[in-house]
Amino acid sequence: MFRPEIRVIDCTIRDGGLANDSNFTFETVRAVYAAACASGVDYVELGYRNSKEMFSPEQFGAWRFCDEEHLRRATDGVDPRDTKISIMQDAHKAVAEDIAPKEKSVVSMVRVATYVKDIDKAIHLANNATDKGYEATINIMAISQEGGPPLDEAVQQIEEETKIQAVYVVDSYGALYSEEVHYLVERFQMYLKTKDIGFHGHNNQLLAFANTIEAIIKGANYVDGTLYGLGRAAGNCPLELLMGFLKNPKFNIVPILDVIGKTIMPLRKDIDWGYHIPYMLAGIRNQHPRDAMEWMDRPDKHDYVAFYNKITEDPE
Amino acid sequence: MFRPEIRVIDCTIRDGGLANDSNFTFETVRAVYAAACASGVDYVELGYRNSKEMFSPEQFGAWRFCDEEHLRRATDGVDPRDTKISIMQDAHKAVAEDIAPKEKSVVSMVRVATYVKDIDKAIHLANNATDKGYEATINIMAISQEGGPPLDEAVQQIEEETKIQAVYVVDSYGALYSEEVHYLVERFQMYLKTKDIGFHGHNNQLLAFANTIEAIIKGANYVDGTLYGLGRAAGNCPLELLMGFLKNPKFNIVPILDVIGKTIMPLRKDIDWGYHIPYMLAGIRNQHPRDAMEWMDRPDKHDYVAFYNKITEDPE
Repeated sequence: MFRPEIRVIDCTIRDGGLANDSNFTFETVRAVYAAACASGVDYVELGYRNSKEMFSPEQFGAWRFCDEEHLRRATDGVDPRDTKISIMQDAHKAVAEDIAPKEKSVVSMVRVATYVKDIDKAIHLANNATDKGYEATINIMAISQEGGPPLDEAVQQIEEETKIQAVYVVDSYGALYSEEVHYLVERFQMYLKTKDIGFHGHNNQLLAFANTIEAIIKGANYVDGTLYGLGRAAGNCPLELLMGFLKNPKFNIVPILDVIGKTIMPLRKDIDWGYHIPYMLAGIRNQHPRDAMEWMDRPDKHDYVAFYNKITEDPE
Repeated sequence: MFRPEIRVIDCTIRDGGLANDSNFTFETVRAVYAAACASGVDYVELGYRNSKEMFSPEQFGAWRFCDEEHLRRATDGVDPRDTKISIMQDAHKAVAEDIAPKEKSVVSMVRVATYVKDIDKAIHLANNATDKGYEATINIMAISQEGGPPLDEAVQQIEEETKIQAVYVVDSYGALYSEEVHYLVERFQMYLKTKDIGFHGHNNQLLAFANTIEAIIKGANYVDGTLYGLGRAAGNCPLELLMGFLKNPKFNIVPILDVIGKTIMPLRKDIDWGYHIPYMLAGIRNQHPRDAMEWMDRPDKHDYVAFYNKITEDPE
């Protein structure tokens, strides 16, 4: 009883890149790409195409920029079957000129991540992508802090001014509960008559998968997952759970299990993503995980009371 | 906007005891008890009172039997405030005679865990407890495998033949999705006119907390959590998440954060509970975690494809 309209995007390398400055090896990216293609995932997002003016190529790895030659080196020779490549641009950290015409690229979809305040930049980048022949989405980040009329206006503007495929509810802070997901999807539906809705969760409160299910139940058709939840801080909705839930007969979970065991688990010695009390507290308090990530680098990281006292200090 | 009828039960020591044969030190149990009392949790479940005929006191620790003298040793001197002590009896592994009259016990509530097939044993033990002056619940385990009319009959029988406080939906296999939780709570509500409904989740698919929220939304008033999700295999609904969600002003999360950092995190060197691919596969396939737990003890535990092949082998 699957819904054929649903599109699953694996964004392991892109979102995981926020945890290691996008410094994945070519072997890792190729293994993830090959597994995604073999498993029947609709899109695999291999990184950001952000500006080299704003991110130093010394500090950040290839997957913060996704040069075409690097994408080709990681994917050449793998049978893509029906899986397409996606990349992301940050509305305030990327430029339109970095997107070549579609016929010169291995990329099929450009997703533009934005805050509500940058919506005009996002629309510019999204229209640049669709004009050049790509599919595109706009992903509205930090939505749990965007309660007011500017959100409605932004969604309305996207509906009227773009030809993109979908607009995402992005729970960047892992703060949303199911009823809030229902509310936001319904709110988006009021404005979006020609576009799908997407959902991207974070796992601060162990709700990324659950909230993705709730978004699907309400009609969202674009959903994101990452292998074993790899992603910044608490991580994301685990792709393997999503595949188990969706029951689309075209999916094959075996290549996903294989790449998790062989490629993703070894990354845990360098990246400690997943459920941790500081990330949980950031989620409950609807805050950026920045402070929690810093805390997790401290030797006394399990002194959760000290962290709690720090983040609940009154501003004055 | 909290619902004052909601009762929160911390069952860290009881459910966690399934992961270490109930071999917690007295210091650990005392620390968990003190934190529960200081945090305002309604009940703290300190173990099973199961039969010494059926569990060897050589293999199993004190918290499989919860002798009154051991309960007193762990709790004496701690100010309980409004927190009561609960213990659990397994319908098929416990005897009525092990329950002393309430006035001789520090225990307030006896919870009876049962499969549907053992419902008459469960009712016998539950009535024994209420007759002796305790509060009681019946917790119907493995409910994701109990689809048929015997479940309705069991719930009806509990309504008619007992004076207990609540009947639990127990998702022992971590297999339920939100819509199934809704369905089961509503199904219980058809029969339970004088009793509350409870929910106890397992985290195989990272849905224990989410499903607990869904049960609450549908009206369940007894909900279980454990510190940092400690419990058998994938573990349980993390108590700290539940406290964050419930917003009852009587709760204080600080003692919970403190005991997690100081007492629970150090247990991780001996007990590897949490989200792991073998547990996830058991949950998706609605199976007992037994095979997955055995697999997690193997040196090649990250060969998830081999595990998948093993559990999906056709029976013939």
